[in-house]
Amino acid sequence: MSEVNIDPRLTQGALLLGDLGLSRVLLVDNALFPWVILVPLRPQLTELLHLSQTERYQLVDEIAQVSEVMKSYFVPDKLNVATLGNQVSQLHIHVIARKITDIAWPHPVWGKGASSYQPDQLLLHAQTLRQLLGIS
Amino acid sequence: MSEVNIDPRLTQGALLLGDLGLSRVLLVDNALFPWVILVPLRPQLTELLHLSQTERYQLVDEIAQVSEVMKSYFVPDKLNVATLGNQVSQLHIHVIARKITDIAWPHPVWGKGASSYQPDQLLLHAQTLRQLLGIS
Repeated sequence: MSEVNIDPRLTQGALLLGDLGLSRVLLVDNALFPWVILVPLRPQLTELLHLSQTERYQLVDEIAQVSEVMKSYFVPDKLNVATLGNQVSQLHIHVIARKITDIAWPHPVWGKGASSYQPDQLLLHAQTLRQLLGIS
Repeated sequence: MSEVNIDPRLTQGALLLGDLGLSRVLLVDNALFPWVILVPLRPQLTELLHLSQTERYQLVDEIAQVSEVMKSYFVPDKLNVATLGNQVSQLHIHVIARKITDIAWPHPVWGKGASSYQPDQLLLHAQTLRQLLGIS
């Protein structure tokens, strides 16, 4: 699986958390919204449809696992889960913890700005999320 | 399952296509983007996490089924699949067929306008989608 290339536009501005069974997990360095991206490590994927049924089930299990962790750690008012791929076609799934007080609420987060975490905060989030995901 | 109430903000401006095993399927009456919504027919759902694993698998199968049909009928450049729920909290999943020529590309479609289909066009789409989904 390590041979699958990840589009650099996904890894840029993100911190690698680690790999689950199917997906690489990235923490987006945007303090405005707690935001994780899952990238299924299969070559040449752009659509959910390109996954086998078994892989789709594995992906939805990993989405649920990441969502649970985001929910317990960030205590959001709502989770947003989406695969768009209009700008970066490689299949990737956003899991975003939304607060009704966040800057974009109730709209989607895309195009609503970015602000890096303080380095200590980013590392703390990464460390905690890795631990909660069991990929520390 | 018929006892599950669907938030009227989901059914307003949409045409009922029918029910799959878990989800009610709606065609959004927006000629700018071919757009279908799946509403899992379980009470008091707001998050994917509220589904059992079996239901999550069923939902992802239905998302794949709807996506295949959208792909074959509308021949999009990209499919967008998302569950947000910031405005209508009842769990619902958007499956949107995107074209690089559509009015919002490459941005997400939310907040990018709406324009009703001609009635004949809406009925043709509904009839064809029902047939392709096997819920005619």
